[in-house]
Amino acid sequence: MKARVHVMLKDGVLDPQGEAVRHALGGLGFAGVEKVRQGKVIELDLADGTTEDAVREMCEKLLANTVIESYQIEMS
Amino acid sequence: MKARVHVMLKDGVLDPQGEAVRHALGGLGFAGVEKVRQGKVIELDLADGTTEDAVREMCEKLLANTVIESYQIEMS
Repeated sequence: MKARVHVMLKDGVLDPQGEAVRHALGGLGFAGVEKVRQGKVIELDLADGTTEDAVREMCEKLLANTVIESYQIEMS
Repeated sequence: MKARVHVMLKDGVLDPQGEAVRHALGGLGFAGVEKVRQGKVIELDLADGTTEDAVREMCEKLLANTVIESYQIEMS
């Protein structure tokens, strides 16, 4: 089974990487890019029977820094 | 309107970051993590009327290195 985890900086936390992308897109002539946030996506191939709770524990312990990042889990 | 772009290393391209995460999860006692791939997710706030084609052009020109990375666009 697979899990996909999105890790994004929380709202209000400055995202210099996203800001750099926004600026670069403007420089390339793309108009109308108002805001950019950049995060991580982690795709996990897991043994059958792994629960979403186990993935949540992975996020809390390793994948996300919950002080400044939020995460979202999709199992499939 | 919003667009979300996933950028992942193509299959067959070595992903040392994902491999490091897999190893670390094993070290923390999480069994059954068979494979990990790590990529980027970019959330764009766009002016109304921006087309998916425009976002595709952003990917080709800046957001993804199409030699080694593939991308996926979700508009919403």
